[in-house]
Amino acid sequence: MTTELITGIRELTTQADDRARRHDAALVIEAGRILWIGPAARAPAAGLRTDVGGRALLPGWVDTHTHLVFAGDRAAEFEARMAGQAYAAGGINTTVAATRAATEEQLVATAARLRGEAAAQGTTFLETKTGYGLDLASETRSARAAASVADVVTFLGAHIVPPGIGRRDYLDLVTGSMLAAVAPHVQFIDAFCEVGAFDVEETREVLLAGRAAGLGLRVHGNQLGFSGGVRLAVELGAASVDHCNHLESADVDALAASDTVATLLPACDLSTRQPFPPARRLLDAGAHIALATNCNPGTSYTTSMPFCVATAVLQMGLTVEEAVWAATRGAARAVGREQGVDAVGSLRVGGRADLQVLDAPSVAHLAYRPGVPLTWGVWRQGVRVGRGSQPLPA
Amino acid sequence: MTTELITGIRELTTQADDRARRHDAALVIEAGRILWIGPAARAPAAGLRTDVGGRALLPGWVDTHTHLVFAGDRAAEFEARMAGQAYAAGGINTTVAATRAATEEQLVATAARLRGEAAAQGTTFLETKTGYGLDLASETRSARAAASVADVVTFLGAHIVPPGIGRRDYLDLVTGSMLAAVAPHVQFIDAFCEVGAFDVEETREVLLAGRAAGLGLRVHGNQLGFSGGVRLAVELGAASVDHCNHLESADVDALAASDTVATLLPACDLSTRQPFPPARRLLDAGAHIALATNCNPGTSYTTSMPFCVATAVLQMGLTVEEAVWAATRGAARAVGREQGVDAVGSLRVGGRADLQVLDAPSVAHLAYRPGVPLTWGVWRQGVRVGRGSQPLPA
Repeated sequence: MTTELITGIRELTTQADDRARRHDAALVIEAGRILWIGPAARAPAAGLRTDVGGRALLPGWVDTHTHLVFAGDRAAEFEARMAGQAYAAGGINTTVAATRAATEEQLVATAARLRGEAAAQGTTFLETKTGYGLDLASETRSARAAASVADVVTFLGAHIVPPGIGRRDYLDLVTGSMLAAVAPHVQFIDAFCEVGAFDVEETREVLLAGRAAGLGLRVHGNQLGFSGGVRLAVELGAASVDHCNHLESADVDALAASDTVATLLPACDLSTRQPFPPARRLLDAGAHIALATNCNPGTSYTTSMPFCVATAVLQMGLTVEEAVWAATRGAARAVGREQGVDAVGSLRVGGRADLQVLDAPSVAHLAYRPGVPLTWGVWRQGVRVGRGSQPLPA
Repeated sequence: MTTELITGIRELTTQADDRARRHDAALVIEAGRILWIGPAARAPAAGLRTDVGGRALLPGWVDTHTHLVFAGDRAAEFEARMAGQAYAAGGINTTVAATRAATEEQLVATAARLRGEAAAQGTTFLETKTGYGLDLASETRSARAAASVADVVTFLGAHIVPPGIGRRDYLDLVTGSMLAAVAPHVQFIDAFCEVGAFDVEETREVLLAGRAAGLGLRVHGNQLGFSGGVRLAVELGAASVDHCNHLESADVDALAASDTVATLLPACDLSTRQPFPPARRLLDAGAHIALATNCNPGTSYTTSMPFCVATAVLQMGLTVEEAVWAATRGAARAVGREQGVDAVGSLRVGGRADLQVLDAPSVAHLAYRPGVPLTWGVWRQGVRVGRGSQPLPA
């Protein structure tokens, strides 16, 4: 079995025992897992040797909130919003119509292209969702398409109530035959708890049905106002509550006292002109946070975790180390993959070799050099998926 | 002579007669210049045919404010600033010490690497500056290094008063033997008019000396406070006044009534946590604006014009078309290259073939998809400097 020794690591961030950055490290990969990590001077021999030329190495990004299964484009709606039109959840219907009209092959092709684009920017683990089908056949097709490209899939039948069906009938569908149809393809259930989408009691009904079907829980909450989604997520022990732009003190306290991760989506906030969530306050209170792209055609059409990390540092008051943690190990917690043999978001002996090398000597450059494409190489389960350039000059 | 026909342009932005986006266009290049632009259906034959697969084509970026001639790295200072330490102009001294210790070959290598990085993101015309030497030998060396990598060079001896010399003596040096030594290598003179750097009268003295030596004028003004730099720039007819974060009504009025371009540097504002300049107010008043990276190791270590365009749309209230204009034709005005046979920033028959193709169907995607590397191909004076990927799916 071929082993690969990676040398020339100027700065290594493992996110295993702590967030510290180590210098002059080396790492050995075998059979998709990490065989050895230690100081470069003590590195063992290996079949293949890759010198990363003085660059920084860290875990691959864990993007726990994307909506990659869709058809169509909402660039015109985006431009109108930038010219002053307010965002409303109803824009989702545009994508629902296009998604219903698409074939499964088309949905898979678009999702796979975006997954590849994310991988080229360092994302090695990715969640995606249904939620633009919103009828039995289209949600089922979306769930299969999602499962074909993502590491973990969430059922978001409760995105909005689509046109042409009553609220009660739609909730019965989502919690009944639609849930049964998608369940073989998904691991989590989610609901958009917001004015224009679902209220707290409706969200609770959907999540409890999902739990009864064996699914983990996620919530879209408190994006456009004080929706109550955050406290419901904590009450039900959801893995994650996502957005969190509008938080009362009681929401912050509830998150801090819970295991529920607050997943922050800064690219979406910029694109919808929502205030950033109070990231600093959440961390200072002791809450767990994650950063994710929320890649979707309406409100956040980016696959770029580096952009989210840079924005979190430049504009949300996180340190570089806090932002990188939130995009790797903190994110792993939001999908229940922080610990165990299939843990992601950290580099440990015996763990998955999901890692990236930056075209920079330090992770600080992710925020110090915003917008510059810094992904130099990406390994997913030990296999290199990106190709690098020349060694960094001294 | 080989001609190249570019077809498959879904959206063409020429910035010639207007900012309109045309559809299904084609373009022919010959000998570094544009030979023909028109509807795809009427495209002439050519020796080489490049199908850009339904992508958007626009002029290459014109980055009129960079400081690429330096040595060293200020990532630690950046991290400290993100953790709450205020920015002060004095940090420049760190880079001055490193730059003085570097050889000309080292300076050229760093600047050329950054120029290449910029080109890979669509920048086809670039200004850079001296200003980290600040003694006769180091400024002269910096000017030569700058001229070897940039399209236009600015003398910024008046960046700060370096340690070990009195203010009066330093001003005499900058306006005397230093100016004489760098003049053969530069086209503009600039001064940092700010608390901690130079006051209005000192800035005036430096600029007038530069004008007497035949140089165009630029000013770093109103970045950290109401420095008076903007009104001095307008009074002296400077080509550009850069930063403009803190403007009084009289500053806006003065700019609106002048030909001086207000060059806005959003990446720097994020990295120093300054308020964004009032871009919308400037445009509404009738002022000319440009967008630039301000690439430098202290306050804005990015070469990414796409990041600046995205930030201008997402956070500064510009429309996509206004931001793209400010990064192309508006920027050309800031270096006196908007008109004439050597005009840049626009695509016209007979003009320079400096252009880029995005991996997207529209320029809107620059802001709609922030952080995603969208540069697909770049042509500088008709020569392709970037290589593309596969055609866009329909």
